[in-house]
Amino acid sequence: MMSKDPSDAPGDIEAAQPDRLYLENLRVGDIFRSGEFLLERDELLAFASRYDPQPFHTDGTAAASSLFGGLAASGWQTASITMRLLVGSVPIAGGLIGLGAEISWPNPTRPGDRLRVESTLTEIRESASRPDRGIVTAESLTLNQDGQVVQRMSSQLMVFRCR
Amino acid sequence: MMSKDPSDAPGDIEAAQPDRLYLENLRVGDIFRSGEFLLERDELLAFASRYDPQPFHTDGTAAASSLFGGLAASGWQTASITMRLLVGSVPIAGGLIGLGAEISWPNPTRPGDRLRVESTLTEIRESASRPDRGIVTAESLTLNQDGQVVQRMSSQLMVFRCR
Repeated sequence: MMSKDPSDAPGDIEAAQPDRLYLENLRVGDIFRSGEFLLERDELLAFASRYDPQPFHTDGTAAASSLFGGLAASGWQTASITMRLLVGSVPIAGGLIGLGAEISWPNPTRPGDRLRVESTLTEIRESASRPDRGIVTAESLTLNQDGQVVQRMSSQLMVFRCR
Repeated sequence: MMSKDPSDAPGDIEAAQPDRLYLENLRVGDIFRSGEFLLERDELLAFASRYDPQPFHTDGTAAASSLFGGLAASGWQTASITMRLLVGSVPIAGGLIGLGAEISWPNPTRPGDRLRVESTLTEIRESASRPDRGIVTAESLTLNQDGQVVQRMSSQLMVFRCR
C-alpha cells in the first residue's frame, strides 16, 4: 500500500520518499500533508534583498509602520517554501512539474514561522492528445504554526501514466 | 511628466526610481518595461537546492534526459526574478503589494538567460468599501534574451490614492 500521507515529523523536510505515484494511482479527494519548514529571519531577509527588495520585506523598522505592521516575507518566498514542502510530500513519479497556478496570500508569513502544506486533489483529467499523461489540479493550503492560511494555491500538475 | 517607461539600460536592475504613482495616475493600457536580470548557473542551482530540489533543476546530467531536455530553473525562481524586475520598473507609491496572481510557464528558464518583464495594466477598480485604495490588474510577460515568454502572470495589486 502506498503512503499518501507520510506524516513527516515536525521540522523534517527530508523525510524518506514514499512510493512514487502515477496518474492511475491518484483519486480526486486524495490528501497529502507535508512536514514543516522553519523560516528564520536571516533567510527571510536574504530572499527579500535579492528578489523582493521592498522595505516591508527587508527592514523591520520600516515594516512596523507599513500595511504589514511588521516584517513580512515576500509572497514569492512563501510560494518557494511551499514548493519545497510539496516536493517532500506529493510523491508524483517523474517529479512535480507545474504548468501553472493561481495563488493568493490571505495572511503574511513572519520571521520564525513554521510552515506546512496540505494539498487536496480536486480534478484529474486525462490528456486528449497525449495518452501517456494527464493534468491533475491540486489545492494547496500553506499554514503557519497557528493554523492561519498564509497561502492558497491551485496548481496544475503534469502526471504520467505508468508505462 | 511621469516616466512610466524608464527604459533601463540592459543589466541595470538598480535604475533610478522614477516618480511614484498613485491610483489616479494609472490608466488601463499603461505599459511598464523592466531592466534585465542575468540568471547565472550558480544562482539557479542554489535556489533549486533550497526550494525546489528536483533533478531537472539541480543536476545537469539528470536534467538532460528529463522532460526539460537540460537544466531548467524552478518556476518559482522565474517568479521571484520577475518580482525583482517589477520592483525596479513599476513605481507604485507605497510599494508593490500583491493580493494574488495567476501564473504559467510556457517555456523553461535556462542558466545564463537574461530575463526582462513587460507589464500592461488591464483593469483598474476602485475599492467599494475603502475609498483610499483600488485594485489594479497587471499582465506581466517575462521574456528571455530571444524574446520567448518564460512566464505569463496576471496579478492583483493594491494601489493607494494620493491623500
